[in-house]
Amino acid sequence: MQDDRRPFTRKLDLKNGQVDMSHGSGGKAMAQLVEELFGAAFDNPLLARRNDQAVFDPPAGRLAVTTDSYVVSPLFFPGGDIGSLAVHGTVNDLAMAGARPLYLTAGFIIEEGFALRDLARIVASMATAAAEAGVAIVTGDTKVVERGKGDGVFINTTGIGAVPPGVAPSGDRARPGDAVLVSGFVGDHGVAIMSTRENLSFETTIASDSAALHGLVAAMVGAVPDIHVLRDPTRGGLATTLNEIARQSGVGMLLDERAIPVRGEVAAACELLGLDPLYVANEGKLVAICAPGDAARLLDAMRGHPLGIDAAVIGTVIDDDHRFVQLQTTFGGKRIVDWLAGEQLPRIC
Amino acid sequence: MQDDRRPFTRKLDLKNGQVDMSHGSGGKAMAQLVEELFGAAFDNPLLARRNDQAVFDPPAGRLAVTTDSYVVSPLFFPGGDIGSLAVHGTVNDLAMAGARPLYLTAGFIIEEGFALRDLARIVASMATAAAEAGVAIVTGDTKVVERGKGDGVFINTTGIGAVPPGVAPSGDRARPGDAVLVSGFVGDHGVAIMSTRENLSFETTIASDSAALHGLVAAMVGAVPDIHVLRDPTRGGLATTLNEIARQSGVGMLLDERAIPVRGEVAAACELLGLDPLYVANEGKLVAICAPGDAARLLDAMRGHPLGIDAAVIGTVIDDDHRFVQLQTTFGGKRIVDWLAGEQLPRIC
Repeated sequence: MQDDRRPFTRKLDLKNGQVDMSHGSGGKAMAQLVEELFGAAFDNPLLARRNDQAVFDPPAGRLAVTTDSYVVSPLFFPGGDIGSLAVHGTVNDLAMAGARPLYLTAGFIIEEGFALRDLARIVASMATAAAEAGVAIVTGDTKVVERGKGDGVFINTTGIGAVPPGVAPSGDRARPGDAVLVSGFVGDHGVAIMSTRENLSFETTIASDSAALHGLVAAMVGAVPDIHVLRDPTRGGLATTLNEIARQSGVGMLLDERAIPVRGEVAAACELLGLDPLYVANEGKLVAICAPGDAARLLDAMRGHPLGIDAAVIGTVIDDDHRFVQLQTTFGGKRIVDWLAGEQLPRIC
Repeated sequence: MQDDRRPFTRKLDLKNGQVDMSHGSGGKAMAQLVEELFGAAFDNPLLARRNDQAVFDPPAGRLAVTTDSYVVSPLFFPGGDIGSLAVHGTVNDLAMAGARPLYLTAGFIIEEGFALRDLARIVASMATAAAEAGVAIVTGDTKVVERGKGDGVFINTTGIGAVPPGVAPSGDRARPGDAVLVSGFVGDHGVAIMSTRENLSFETTIASDSAALHGLVAAMVGAVPDIHVLRDPTRGGLATTLNEIARQSGVGMLLDERAIPVRGEVAAACELLGLDPLYVANEGKLVAICAPGDAARLLDAMRGHPLGIDAAVIGTVIDDDHRFVQLQTTFGGKRIVDWLAGEQLPRIC
């Protein structure tokens, strides 16, 4: 009898096992999954308490909080997977507030039948990404849905960070005359995902740019504490992000097409697919807007960081009641760059 | 041209419209959904900034953070829906740390084709539950998955609360001699959900007990600041929750079956279904463990609150290397109450 009372008599079969409904039931099987898979990979003192919440002293400075659910398809792609993406994406949303990322929560919705081996690979990738970004995954949740009611695994991460005094970037702070910068080549993530989709038969060596940007942001804020706007151009790409900012701030923008960094291979893939790279998602790039007098210093700081080597000033904020984002094209004309309308590529993140 | 540049020329059709893939694309359709549905229902100054994160001054006291994804099926059930449940469940996980709930984040994963009318109903229910619990939904995220890759809507909420000084309940603080209390009738939520499942043809008037317990906890902590353990017996029910605590604290428990409040109708439904009410989920009940000398005061405080009127002392923590939870049965015998093994009822929350 005593043996049977040890909660887990056999270890999880991470090689050939599958997630079944019992792993979401709240009982013994779920406790085992949490302990042997999540607990082992994410181990830290707060998670180790095995309560339904983490309790800790608040950090100095204001708090930043952000949430994202990740439903990327496929789950594994060149340059990353849903696990690393779920860490990078949320770390980046914290970094875009100028925050130092501190804690993540992780909520898993797993489809019945999902291979434990794949889940373990994803969890290991999350753990590595979190360790590299210096964040602890302090609490979590696991749900299982029946076959055909999910798609492998969906992951929600919510992040908490600390914002240093004097740092207050916000989408409503772009002012006419401000400089618009981007941290590197745009469109890599979207093209990498597209290259893997079954119904799209082109090949490319482009990998996702998925990366945690908090280090780059720390360098930028160190050089220019009063950055007006920071935002990562994910779904909807650079074009949509700039339109969002234009709307929030009540301004227009004028971009120089030649200044926007796009890899030749990304441009070629987009041409093949009838897409505009300005609308293709990024997961390791940021847009920064600052006072004109700060632009050179900010650009230097960006180029001095490995994730900002290809940074560029790509345009200027202008006064415009219509809140248009306009592009000075390579051919000398001007065109309006609208919001993404409809869908470009579903489940990019 | 100017009209076309207004982001949304027509309002969302909340009566007959459906969610489509464009609502998750990051473009104009998503911005409209966020603005007209989520933004309007959850309106507060932090959310109104429309950044990808909320930034605020930390509250006094330690911080509590918790996350849960909700996949309950069906989405609407007697006594609640996935929206109110997603607020109550996360508020309760904060309350179980003795915390005052302050902020929620909300992440939606919506299946293509989901009726906007149902989404609006769920969002309204979330907004009402949040207002009643005194929490603000300060940031969120929306993803859309293709038909057949989800199940209507899944919601993640992550909560942040403030823990007053001197309050530190934790699953590892149960000590031999401590009293075990429950705040009311067990099994209501699970039976209410079961009564709605298509393949289960019994009728009951039992409604889910889904409720926010932070007010009850505030009254309890006011009377007995040093409550040793607080936990809400959700998935896996009372039996699994007590086993978790026994394991965390390295103790046993001896329960008195006659003292455990179970409604006659719940007992009858469970008998019909071959279930044990001790394993059936609750969404508005809590377990509290305190020093024996505090038990009477704690019970009085619980019974003085509308959500604790039927509270009872149900057992005692005992010294037991086996960490058994035992039940003194109505017939005078003793039996071991094990963890829930396997699945009892999937997608209960």
